[in-house]
Amino acid sequence: MTLGKTKSKQEVIEALHGVAAEMHDKMLKGKPPAMTLPVRTKKNIQFDKKLQVYKYGKNKSTRDATALSSARVLLRSLHITEFIEEMINSGKSSTLREMYYISEGWGNGKFGNQNESNNLAEDLEIVTKCIREDFKLRPEEDGARIIGNVTFEEKNRKGEWMRINCRDDVGDSGYGVPYNVESEKLRLVEQDIDFVMAVETGGMFDRLVENGFDEEARCAIIHLKGQPARSTRRIMKRMSDEWKKPIIVFADCDPWSFRIFASIAYGAIKTAHISEYLATNEAIYLGITADDILAYDLPSDDLTKSDLGALESELSDPRFATGWWKEQINLMQEIGKKAEQQSLAKYGLDFVTDTYLPEKLGALGLNY
Amino acid sequence: MTLGKTKSKQEVIEALHGVAAEMHDKMLKGKPPAMTLPVRTKKNIQFDKKLQVYKYGKNKSTRDATALSSARVLLRSLHITEFIEEMINSGKSSTLREMYYISEGWGNGKFGNQNESNNLAEDLEIVTKCIREDFKLRPEEDGARIIGNVTFEEKNRKGEWMRINCRDDVGDSGYGVPYNVESEKLRLVEQDIDFVMAVETGGMFDRLVENGFDEEARCAIIHLKGQPARSTRRIMKRMSDEWKKPIIVFADCDPWSFRIFASIAYGAIKTAHISEYLATNEAIYLGITADDILAYDLPSDDLTKSDLGALESELSDPRFATGWWKEQINLMQEIGKKAEQQSLAKYGLDFVTDTYLPEKLGALGLNY
Repeated sequence: MTLGKTKSKQEVIEALHGVAAEMHDKMLKGKPPAMTLPVRTKKNIQFDKKLQVYKYGKNKSTRDATALSSARVLLRSLHITEFIEEMINSGKSSTLREMYYISEGWGNGKFGNQNESNNLAEDLEIVTKCIREDFKLRPEEDGARIIGNVTFEEKNRKGEWMRINCRDDVGDSGYGVPYNVESEKLRLVEQDIDFVMAVETGGMFDRLVENGFDEEARCAIIHLKGQPARSTRRIMKRMSDEWKKPIIVFADCDPWSFRIFASIAYGAIKTAHISEYLATNEAIYLGITADDILAYDLPSDDLTKSDLGALESELSDPRFATGWWKEQINLMQEIGKKAEQQSLAKYGLDFVTDTYLPEKLGALGLNY
Repeated sequence: MTLGKTKSKQEVIEALHGVAAEMHDKMLKGKPPAMTLPVRTKKNIQFDKKLQVYKYGKNKSTRDATALSSARVLLRSLHITEFIEEMINSGKSSTLREMYYISEGWGNGKFGNQNESNNLAEDLEIVTKCIREDFKLRPEEDGARIIGNVTFEEKNRKGEWMRINCRDDVGDSGYGVPYNVESEKLRLVEQDIDFVMAVETGGMFDRLVENGFDEEARCAIIHLKGQPARSTRRIMKRMSDEWKKPIIVFADCDPWSFRIFASIAYGAIKTAHISEYLATNEAIYLGITADDILAYDLPSDDLTKSDLGALESELSDPRFATGWWKEQINLMQEIGKKAEQQSLAKYGLDFVTDTYLPEKLGALGLNY
């Protein structure tokens, strides 16, 4: 099984049974049941220079039933696999929060807090090589919104495929990306665009939509909603892979926004086991850059202490280990300023689409 | 002009010119220009027992140009009215954040922070008897999502009316409510429902959608996204007024969720000048109630100090001055517990739609 390839229900169920089988085999041999996992701490994360994404290192830990806390983890794993199997068979899904509450009925397997249940769901992804979406587990937060001349087919609750064009068939708020964007749920069927513009803030997304930037620049506009959900990162990856479109990231000039870009392009520590599946290496950071603050004389705010700390740690982050990023970060430290996307409104509501984006995209060779 | 009735562009522009005219008249008479506003502090807010909503009291303050800070407010008001007039004439809108940045070009009228610009936008609503939507000013946050057999017509960017059925024409994430839900932008055209179910959390919204509750119970489901945006409160008010459908609120059992209900039913302090326009007096709080925590033996958390403080202040809030609310709040204080909507998952993913909601709705006379 490979990640990022849709698995059949049967394959997912077999992978889950594998967890139980490993424990069962150990018991037949008279040994305590166990589960082996990579160590998921920051120390065991490595930046894979070839793949250009974060991956787990070689350290493994074995949970076996000789310690009470490990025994609890094994018990929970078995309850979860049973719960997931039930959901798959009945065509249901559940939020991570619901799973946490469902564990109320698991006796000694009950979770102490939601961190425990979230982490175990990720552990099971690693052990089974499935993804959370295969398990029918969803997060609480909404996915992204998309506007532009791209057409998806989404399988609705009745099992019918609905065709939705993100320019003609939706209101101003756009198409809401579902939590599961794998091919069994969502198909990328047609497009007439040159690139995808991923936008950090809702205010700027709405500005580009109102100004008709999607049509003028022949792009799909996607609202990241801050740190993007898995489904958001995954759908960008699919648009990059299947449609071969550049993903252009337009965010605030702020150390936290740089991290949004890094998680899109190189993966995040929490999802290092599925980086190849979520990360779009080809993504390009457009702006706002520290350069832009000076070049466009943008309204800016002073960097706070925690901003400065974040910038400092980015300097040693392998995801920012290029000359260009180092220059930008150094320049920010030097001028001590950050700026929001919407600060471009200083020059009026059309400046971003009439001047800023054409200039910046032109520098990337994307003229329109 | 009455609130809640759509104004023509010309009416809005005239109302704005009235602000300038008042200043101009004063100057012709050799007096300093001035603007008169109700005092917008908590002390000048009264609960209107007849209308059952919050309204401003009789205290007024006059800003005249004899003090520097007041002169600034007048200058800003004139810049804003000019900016809004330009937007109306060019068919544009802007976020409150953008307006704040646009003031960079206003010299002495430049806003010191965004609070100032947000407050002034609300002041102008009061002076002109227009609403922010008439001014083409929008907030940053997204509006609600709706699923169910209701049909809206939304005017798209090209000025065409699009017909969208919130059951058949949308994906799983539902119809995204635009920021402006007045009749020039959105029409309520058709429905085949018995009531509207307003749901606090995304997890519970998705649960009801997945379980097909909208079809089974013949309702529209609306996701409030926490404290609901103005557009969300306004569309509920319109569904209540135009379709005569009960608005049933389903939230966590938590003092902050009670406030969500109160703002839906009786208005909020910040928007007291447009309470009749936003507040749906007929809204009904369904649960989770303190009763439910006991009756259904729900997983619960201890009330924090700040929860207890919020409950205490609700006891003296006129919006909770009914016997029923007092009982519920007293019971919560007694048991010292709060519970989330999703805690119903303790009994499985279908418990909420198979048992809890039928029982609670049945008690309200809504059988299905």
